Amino acid sequence: MITIKQVAEYAGVSVATVSRALNDSGYVGKESRKKVEEAVEALGYFPNEVARSLFQKTSRMLGLLLPDISNPYFPLLAKGVEDCAQKNGYMVILGNVEEDADKEEMYVKFFSQYNISGILSAASGKKAYGAQVPQVLLDRALEGENYSVSTDDTLGGELAGQAVVDAGAREIIVMAGPRKVSGARDRLSGILSVLNKEQVSYKVLETETFNVEKAEATAQKLFDTFDTFDTVIANNDVFALAVMKEAIKRGFSIPEDIQIIGYDNMLFSRLMYPGLTTVAQPAYEVGYKGAKMLIDLIEKKTVADKRVKLEPELIRRDSLR
Amino acid sequence: MITIKQVAEYAGVSVATVSRALNDSGYVGKESRKKVEEAVEALGYFPNEVARSLFQKTSRMLGLLLPDISNPYFPLLAKGVEDCAQKNGYMVILGNVEEDADKEEMYVKFFSQYNISGILSAASGKKAYGAQVPQVLLDRALEGENYSVSTDDTLGGELAGQAVVDAGAREIIVMAGPRKVSGARDRLSGILSVLNKEQVSYKVLETETFNVEKAEATAQKLFDTFDTFDTVIANNDVFALAVMKEAIKRGFSIPEDIQIIGYDNMLFSRLMYPGLTTVAQPAYEVGYKGAKMLIDLIEKKTVADKRVKLEPELIRRDSLR
Repeated sequence: MITIKQVAEYAGVSVATVSRALNDSGYVGKESRKKVEEAVEALGYFPNEVARSLFQKTSRMLGLLLPDISNPYFPLLAKGVEDCAQKNGYMVILGNVEEDADKEEMYVKFFSQYNISGILSAASGKKAYGAQVPQVLLDRALEGENYSVSTDDTLGGELAGQAVVDAGAREIIVMAGPRKVSGARDRLSGILSVLNKEQVSYKVLETETFNVEKAEATAQKLFDTFDTFDTVIANNDVFALAVMKEAIKRGFSIPEDIQIIGYDNMLFSRLMYPGLTTVAQPAYEVGYKGAKMLIDLIEKKTVADKRVKLEPELIRRDSLR
Repeated sequence: MITIKQVAEYAGVSVATVSRALNDSGYVGKESRKKVEEAVEALGYFPNEVARSLFQKTSRMLGLLLPDISNPYFPLLAKGVEDCAQKNGYMVILGNVEEDADKEEMYVKFFSQYNISGILSAASGKKAYGAQVPQVLLDRALEGENYSVSTDDTLGGELAGQAVVDAGAREIIVMAGPRKVSGARDRLSGILSVLNKEQVSYKVLETETFNVEKAEATAQKLFDTFDTFDTVIANNDVFALAVMKEAIKRGFSIPEDIQIIGYDNMLFSRLMYPGLTTVAQPAYEVGYKGAKMLIDLIEKKTVADKRVKLEPELIRRDSLR
């Protein structure tokens, strides 16, 4: 590995000058700075981040916890995190915790061992991970937590509820989403507030998980449990897709016999036929703004709004009448 | 932070004993070992990985480069990598390079700064990233590269070609996939070898990229360019989905008027209607076996097969006649 001493020798200046030039601390003459820059370039020198991290007791790495990377919502969110991190000179360590509290704990421990600068968590987030590094919750705000970026899921629920009412829904099945996830609870309460206000008949189907592996079984259960309905408000786009397939298999037309609305606005929702009407969560933006908030916390900048709520948007396609 | 000295005090043994117990080096009495374990548990001690990494000039982190995290194939692959890494006590740093050579280079430099133990790359992989750490290419084998885990894409192409021939294809459009990607080249040559042997009429549509954002425009171009065809061999499932949508929009029935086969076997391919017949790439397995190979290289174990090719599988659903 190239050392700072070798850089100084190549540039023909002192080690102290190289250090000042690299750290932008203290005066360095224009000529010397140019020589140092040329030496750095020529030798391919860069400071050893591990050494720096040990010295500063911090790294330039962000830990990102995701509940389920195979749910296409989370790669989008991760992309937002990563783009913001990269722009600000941070790297991202990804932990896929799969709704498993043990795995989550293990990752947090790992993060601590590497002196991670801060943690972004879209996982269950039952509790804060100790107070040693800044933390921002993504997508799942918690009572009592200080920092979070999430979608206004109550508004998202209201948008979905109003859309099916406007489309003439008469008998609605609402897929509830896991109750332990705050976003799912907010969304349900948004949906039900509209349906109650508009006095439309509905029933709630409890679903334990957003896990994509459960989508087909849940869709079958929906049709096996309920006899008469003309509208489904699905808990996300993957489940909506499974319900559409089950409906078509059982001989129903969409949206004529059964209309359906999703949640998330995944890529395939646009590409499928009929196109899925859905509520778009700003997944990329949640990731990006969450990472920005975390980096501001790490760098001790002022964070004006500790609990940012981004607005979801109704995307009209062809699965509602 | 808890130190080894505090562990020794708590356990009532010497620092040397704690060190021997933790590193499994030299004799430690059963009773002492139990005391050390209790102290570690009680104090929540763990060795500082950054310090260890500095000392050993290596970490227990794997760098993973992906070309496009929003293409659902890669999260599956990443999940395989991550599961294997976790099982073996490694963490994964993810770099999403988006087919951008500069970004790729920047990540490799970052990896080097953190003394990453090894690199897994599913990105363009135009060249090896220096010889400092072990490297395994995922999914995209290169001529002259020593270590890779990929799918046998020639066989995958043959499976797709034979499937449409068996389904009575008369006039086929083959979507070629980007020529710079070895897997895409292999797949095309597998497809064409079957079509030439069976003497079925075909035309090739060049596609520059697997980028999901280009899927709709490519599907439109396909229908605008070619007049008479009854079969499409798509370059992946996302593009297949876009072609299906465009076909239905233009009044064609699937599979009666136009039949189509994909490549990848994504989640949505099973959930859409009609279900997409496709060639399943073992994405998770590629990731898992690639990570295992890399860890074996890092830990200086014997790697018998340097270029592992996994077999793809034809998944029959309803989009072929």
